[in-house]
Amino acid sequence: MSKFNQPLGGNDMARFGGPATMMRLPTQDTAAGLDVAFIGIPMDIGTSNRSGTRHGPRQIRDESRMLRPFNMATGAAPFDHLQVADIGDVPINTFDLKKSVDIITDYYNGVLAHGALPLTLGGDHTLTWPILRAIKAKHGPVALIHVDAHADINDTMFGEKVAHGCPFRRAFEDGCLQNDKVFQIGLRGTGYSLDDFDWGRKNGWTVVQAEECWYKSLKPLMAEIRAKIGDAPVYLSYDIDSLDPAFAPGTGTVEPGGLTIWQGLEIVRGCAGLNIVGGDLVEVSPPYDPSGNTALIGANLLYEMLCVLPGVPQGKHIG
Amino acid sequence: MSKFNQPLGGNDMARFGGPATMMRLPTQDTAAGLDVAFIGIPMDIGTSNRSGTRHGPRQIRDESRMLRPFNMATGAAPFDHLQVADIGDVPINTFDLKKSVDIITDYYNGVLAHGALPLTLGGDHTLTWPILRAIKAKHGPVALIHVDAHADINDTMFGEKVAHGCPFRRAFEDGCLQNDKVFQIGLRGTGYSLDDFDWGRKNGWTVVQAEECWYKSLKPLMAEIRAKIGDAPVYLSYDIDSLDPAFAPGTGTVEPGGLTIWQGLEIVRGCAGLNIVGGDLVEVSPPYDPSGNTALIGANLLYEMLCVLPGVPQGKHIG
Amino acid sequence: MSKFNQPLGGNDMARFGGPATMMRLPTQDTAAGLDVAFIGIPMDIGTSNRSGTRHGPRQIRDESRMLRPFNMATGAAPFDHLQVADIGDVPINTFDLKKSVDIITDYYNGVLAHGALPLTLGGDHTLTWPILRAIKAKHGPVALIHVDAHADINDTMFGEKVAHGCPFRRAFEDGCLQNDKVFQIGLRGTGYSLDDFDWGRKNGWTVVQAEECWYKSLKPLMAEIRAKIGDAPVYLSYDIDSLDPAFAPGTGTVEPGGLTIWQGLEIVRGCAGLNIVGGDLVEVSPPYDPSGNTALIGANLLYEMLCVLPGVPQGKHIG
Amino acid sequence: MSKFNQPLGGNDMARFGGPATMMRLPTQDTAAGLDVAFIGIPMDIGTSNRSGTRHGPRQIRDESRMLRPFNMATGAAPFDHLQVADIGDVPINTFDLKKSVDIITDYYNGVLAHGALPLTLGGDHTLTWPILRAIKAKHGPVALIHVDAHADINDTMFGEKVAHGCPFRRAFEDGCLQNDKVFQIGLRGTGYSLDDFDWGRKNGWTVVQAEECWYKSLKPLMAEIRAKIGDAPVYLSYDIDSLDPAFAPGTGTVEPGGLTIWQGLEIVRGCAGLNIVGGDLVEVSPPYDPSGNTALIGANLLYEMLCVLPGVPQGKHIG
Amino acid sequence: MSKFNQPLGGNDMARFGGPATMMRLPTQDTAAGLDVAFIGIPMDIGTSNRSGTRHGPRQIRDESRMLRPFNMATGAAPFDHLQVADIGDVPINTFDLKKSVDIITDYYNGVLAHGALPLTLGGDHTLTWPILRAIKAKHGPVALIHVDAHADINDTMFGEKVAHGCPFRRAFEDGCLQNDKVFQIGLRGTGYSLDDFDWGRKNGWTVVQAEECWYKSLKPLMAEIRAKIGDAPVYLSYDIDSLDPAFAPGTGTVEPGGLTIWQGLEIVRGCAGLNIVGGDLVEVSPPYDPSGNTALIGANLLYEMLCVLPGVPQGKHIG
Amino acid sequence: MSKFNQPLGGNDMARFGGPATMMRLPTQDTAAGLDVAFIGIPMDIGTSNRSGTRHGPRQIRDESRMLRPFNMATGAAPFDHLQVADIGDVPINTFDLKKSVDIITDYYNGVLAHGALPLTLGGDHTLTWPILRAIKAKHGPVALIHVDAHADINDTMFGEKVAHGCPFRRAFEDGCLQNDKVFQIGLRGTGYSLDDFDWGRKNGWTVVQAEECWYKSLKPLMAEIRAKIGDAPVYLSYDIDSLDPAFAPGTGTVEPGGLTIWQGLEIVRGCAGLNIVGGDLVEVSPPYDPSGNTALIGANLLYEMLCVLPGVPQGKHIG
Repeated sequence: MSKFNQPLGGNDMARFGGPATMMRLPTQDTAAGLDVAFIGIPMDIGTSNRSGTRHGPRQIRDESRMLRPFNMATGAAPFDHLQVADIGDVPINTFDLKKSVDIITDYYNGVLAHGALPLTLGGDHTLTWPILRAIKAKHGPVALIHVDAHADINDTMFGEKVAHGCPFRRAFEDGCLQNDKVFQIGLRGTGYSLDDFDWGRKNGWTVVQAEECWYKSLKPLMAEIRAKIGDAPVYLSYDIDSLDPAFAPGTGTVEPGGLTIWQGLEIVRGCAGLNIVGGDLVEVSPPYDPSGNTALIGANLLYEMLCVLPGVPQGKHIG
Repeated sequence: MSKFNQPLGGNDMARFGGPATMMRLPTQDTAAGLDVAFIGIPMDIGTSNRSGTRHGPRQIRDESRMLRPFNMATGAAPFDHLQVADIGDVPINTFDLKKSVDIITDYYNGVLAHGALPLTLGGDHTLTWPILRAIKAKHGPVALIHVDAHADINDTMFGEKVAHGCPFRRAFEDGCLQNDKVFQIGLRGTGYSLDDFDWGRKNGWTVVQAEECWYKSLKPLMAEIRAKIGDAPVYLSYDIDSLDPAFAPGTGTVEPGGLTIWQGLEIVRGCAGLNIVGGDLVEVSPPYDPSGNTALIGANLLYEMLCVLPGVPQGKHIG
Repeated sequence: MSKFNQPLGGNDMARFGGPATMMRLPTQDTAAGLDVAFIGIPMDIGTSNRSGTRHGPRQIRDESRMLRPFNMATGAAPFDHLQVADIGDVPINTFDLKKSVDIITDYYNGVLAHGALPLTLGGDHTLTWPILRAIKAKHGPVALIHVDAHADINDTMFGEKVAHGCPFRRAFEDGCLQNDKVFQIGLRGTGYSLDDFDWGRKNGWTVVQAEECWYKSLKPLMAEIRAKIGDAPVYLSYDIDSLDPAFAPGTGTVEPGGLTIWQGLEIVRGCAGLNIVGGDLVEVSPPYDPSGNTALIGANLLYEMLCVLPGVPQGKHIG
Repeated sequence: MSKFNQPLGGNDMARFGGPATMMRLPTQDTAAGLDVAFIGIPMDIGTSNRSGTRHGPRQIRDESRMLRPFNMATGAAPFDHLQVADIGDVPINTFDLKKSVDIITDYYNGVLAHGALPLTLGGDHTLTWPILRAIKAKHGPVALIHVDAHADINDTMFGEKVAHGCPFRRAFEDGCLQNDKVFQIGLRGTGYSLDDFDWGRKNGWTVVQAEECWYKSLKPLMAEIRAKIGDAPVYLSYDIDSLDPAFAPGTGTVEPGGLTIWQGLEIVRGCAGLNIVGGDLVEVSPPYDPSGNTALIGANLLYEMLCVLPGVPQGKHIG
Repeated sequence: MSKFNQPLGGNDMARFGGPATMMRLPTQDTAAGLDVAFIGIPMDIGTSNRSGTRHGPRQIRDESRMLRPFNMATGAAPFDHLQVADIGDVPINTFDLKKSVDIITDYYNGVLAHGALPLTLGGDHTLTWPILRAIKAKHGPVALIHVDAHADINDTMFGEKVAHGCPFRRAFEDGCLQNDKVFQIGLRGTGYSLDDFDWGRKNGWTVVQAEECWYKSLKPLMAEIRAKIGDAPVYLSYDIDSLDPAFAPGTGTVEPGGLTIWQGLEIVRGCAGLNIVGGDLVEVSPPYDPSGNTALIGANLLYEMLCVLPGVPQGKHIG
Repeated sequence: MSKFNQPLGGNDMARFGGPATMMRLPTQDTAAGLDVAFIGIPMDIGTSNRSGTRHGPRQIRDESRMLRPFNMATGAAPFDHLQVADIGDVPINTFDLKKSVDIITDYYNGVLAHGALPLTLGGDHTLTWPILRAIKAKHGPVALIHVDAHADINDTMFGEKVAHGCPFRRAFEDGCLQNDKVFQIGLRGTGYSLDDFDWGRKNGWTVVQAEECWYKSLKPLMAEIRAKIGDAPVYLSYDIDSLDPAFAPGTGTVEPGGLTIWQGLEIVRGCAGLNIVGGDLVEVSPPYDPSGNTALIGANLLYEMLCVLPGVPQGKHIG
């Protein structure tokens, strides 16, 4: 047996039973002693269209129940190398978004103080900004791989600085990012002007619009990104709406013409070798996901993040 | 033809077509010239459990399309006596609940300045407090008929004064209510202590728990309420979750053992003769209402409110 | 073993398997040799609001799979006394409503020529008129028990004489009805004027509005109806929207405040002893019935109709 | 603060967050030290029509998140008097029903050995038989209050002795029941012969068919039952399909014409004063419950069971 | 600010509020003064399998609420160059398909008389024939780009000339088409014989079956089509079922193996430079689209049509 | 007219009516006289995660109603060359999985004795093992084309030899397979070790993981497979979860990153020329398929299997 926590196996408890934790892992109240902490942020008050992401963490955990420990595509066996647990949810204030972002930063300061690497189950995308503030306090400015349909760099929405369309503008202002190592992948749809995507470019960011990804593997892109990032600490923020709604219907601000799930897997798997210091999977909205499959894909992508963390050896990648 | 606005009829445009306004009525930008204004408040950031009420006004309007002008049960023909229109939605700030309540009060001050009576399509129940502030400014303290599963008189929720569990506490503090003329009907479920319902009683309010309503007509109750209220101005706040979830599944904070739709109709119809100065129908949450029937019932209850407004003659009530 | 067709039993084939026929009965192409024929009319082009009733017959059959042969409430055992089969669907012309009504009349003329009593799975309510034309040709004018939220006696809808809001007006004009023996139960909602329900009354019909039924058993009403009808031939037309949408959400023209399922069962069971010559169950719309329960209730009501047909002895009624 | 476990409150963690345990209570691996243990049995391989009850325990727990500690209708405050926890799920063998029933009996033998009273979240009704075997081993034969649409006393189904239609036949054969103190409430629908319900009666059981309950309060019935049971140990088995599908659509073997939720609450609340030794809530099938409301009602009924357990003082019952 | 109508922006009214018009544009009763008119045709009585497209226009409008004015992929800013409004729905006769087609032609004659270009929100595909009759009266025979799973060139369906499988046969017979400039893209599935697709080819049409499109960009195809059409007036008819059901599940006559959304976008964007005189987006069926995403995609495709109309400058196309 | 059974055409009965049999074909009780028999196995008690596949055969039949006789992509016209009927469902014992597998083998022995080729509508994947036992008895060991997300070669699940994750291990042990002619396509996801896929490879099987298929046509793969199989008898087992959940959401053990529908069609069409002796389509779970599209795709794939059976001439393949 491994010396680390293991997901509860299907031969010990049928998949549809057992604790509704991430991958049916053990829980603990703090991140003490952990290499990696799965954390939920049940929040949707930062959303601008459909809400419902407040239920994301619970549904992602529920649908993570099928996940087994070994990655058949990459040979990664994360639970042989890392101590992982589900430490529950951040007690956000659902009636006040601005207070919630401070609660989140405080919470992540605590997690990082334990030396644990946070993988977050969202929740709307507002949450990445307060996490990045804590990440910066620990690691300094980081490289960023941001997979999304939207740039999320609005200065304000409805006059507000805190909203799910603004986190990367705020993170930029707070000096959280190494601007020459910021990559936005999957952007598309409608906006107000070219500047909606070019603002980042002007700040040195690399923007890869969805149309540039159509019909092809993203392995070359990821190789290029890895080369540019080198050994800088990297944060990976994955908005499920980066995927075309065919693949991830259960989200709130849908834009057609997005990435495929194959590309999504290539992106995360393509982070192997990077110095990842944290990651999130955001914007799963269960009320728009009656089959549960969007949450299931979210759970899989979080598992794939786990598989590329520093300290997890990679096997031979298939495909 | 009537001199007043009429709902677009089914013989002029099939029910599933035409404008998606309340009852397919004309729209106008302000309440100028109106006796009654239907107003939407697309808000869910005050909810404590499931969200989704932000979509309530749109779905209530959509499902109001079957409503014809004449009330077959009461003989009321409101569009023969009142100028009614749909004046659209209040531009709430969906990222800041506290700012939204002030936006709402300002908006209703404007509506009331035009002399129009507001009937509101919610939205979460937080909205009743800011409306009552505007109502008080116009009419002074009012009687209240509050139909709900919950008392909504929490001092705070998660430390906040503004939330959908607090509006009537705030309205009380603001002197909006005639406390001997406050009636809460349908309360039930679980709480923290007897005081959850008794706080109102201690302030002179009448609380009729759901269990007291089981298996019987509420006509006697409404006769009693009418006698107590007399000609005081009355506000009617109808939370769709007052109904048992069998009747209104599409809402966020469900409590079993509630009122029947027959009782719900008796309550609203039983307001005929009162000096109603405003009303709302809140907490319809479309993501939990796939058939649309909860919104349809909400639309019907708003129509029934219209039918008992001052100035609308009543025919012989059936049943 | 009975000499008659029997529903396929759950001990011979699991309920979710076997033929998707009404009650998993045998099929035959014509009504030859049958006492009772279940017939589907997959039609929705007569609907005025939501469509979808074209799928009603298939879903009613699917959800009829739980029905066992013995009625635990009334002691009826219809398959011991009647030869019953499912003879499939009427090949209506889904692109032309007016042609479809003639197809239906022709089809039922054929069924009735075989001496079989038709029980129809709708389909929208337009279909009752062409059936009644055939019934009249066979039996002369009949008594009618019409359970519905709507009177369905419009002269026209959008200028058309054939629509689901007009069948009983057409049947009246065609002399299909014994006007002193017409009973409409469950009517409610909104209309254009008192005449919407009073037109029938003026012609001698008895109209029992839904409000008159609230909070009470309908056994006394059914006793009265039986007394008035005596031994006249009776047609029973049951629109599922007579039930409150809490009980039957899956239908197209929903009106709150309707009958309960207990009342619905009392109405059909209260027809025991009458000389029923045909019946239908209409307006089940599967797209608005994701659980299948509305179709299941429709199937049960059709089974209850079977249990009160002439020739089926009644046991001791419970309750 | 109470010395006992408390549900996690909404002011500490928003309702949609926190652990997905029953009432957000703490978990423990065994029943050691508990007065009451909530236990899940994620099983549906005993069902005969729709499956899906394997997901019942998880969804009941999820939807229990709104439950607060104090019962506003009865004044019960169970967490002031009992140590309660959620001890997780029984590791049934989902590929072998017969093995699963033995796993269940063994598991409950263990729970009872700790002196804890089990309240079970089902799962299909097969599970009550193996629980009753363990209950008998501890308490001897017990009185039974069985609320259900079906008698569940088939000798076999498809030739099998173990299925969700047989548990009370098996319990009878195993001598688990005090036959003069067995009450079946809510039975209805179709069957094969009178004996489907009369078999129990012949063995001394009291059968109250649903039709006998229509339109009335069940308080008198419960008073009668309490008088007959006296201080015998009692097991309460509540099949959610006892309720009419209007109230509980999310179940597998639906029968129209059932109990109301008000009656359901009266039944459970009417057990106050009895010597209850265990209870279950079975047959919630999440795939047929998209709003989650059936699971929510199931969670509420389990809470109400908790409120009437020996040791919990009753306040003044409302209504 | 632009001199033309603008969609209501998200900073003025939250996306889930405001008027439920196409892109939240202003409405007007006629096409007077417009360059482009969005028009709804709420019709499903021409459908042969699932119905529900009668609700298409309302849901497309509802889900168009996220659309912002600037096209991030093509640089088009249509509202800087065109006066656009939503002029509501055609009052079709939902009980008579044949009358409805004449109502449609008359209506479009009126629109075209105002000089406005119509973009239509369907509705079933029957509607394209009567639109093409009006288009021909204005522009003479037109080139056609027809994107669909089906050829829709049946001579009759169930003996009828008017049905959603026949519009292009009728348009051909009426001389509406320049047969050497007709392109059908995406055809697939099952039929009765080779002639189902070859009839068009025999008349000079170009048929591109879905299988010919698999795994590749359609930019070369569109270049070829543009070259062949030249400056002829073109009508673009886009059936949402051209897309594989993975991308557009909410439609009535589903055929697996269809186009991708990326191809769909390439087709519409590839029309830039053509002399488009009208377009439609048909066969969105909301009852089969619970997430709303099919309607959302339909809204996006209509927006993309707007972006390629004559008079709208194209920026640099990405991808 | 053909001398063989034909699907009921849409011009004889609207698609949503008529018998709910596979492709609306005639039924018969046995396989006597048939070239091909469609057979349902309504079973889900072998599933390990979500259940619901017991309803697969009924929903596949329901959604097969659109299928017309001629394959527009391949020119195949199977009903001109084969006598095909739907012979209904296997009466599995839904309470005992082990007995069910023997019932299935016996049933297929009977079908094969008539000389009919079976095409099976599942049901969970457990069923392929008992079918292969019957196939072996008739044909000896066969080549296998197994399309799936999972290898289904577990020795046991929860200690059991019979479960939906074990059929090909059992078939191997029973000598049903020609191990050098076994092809598994689409495998992916998570497991316990490399051996989860390598066990087959070690036995001579060819495993093509999903990642190896991304972004390309599978025609070359199928050419290779055909070359390797030659004229050996072949069984084709198609698990719908081989497809990515974007294409087939309605199944129980979902794994992201799967095959496309275009690849799925290429696989089946690529079997033309092989000596197919049977096939199945398994794991469609209707409760997770509200639109019905997964079942529809399943029906289409079964039709495509019919089109490549020996004796059906192929036309020119498009694409």
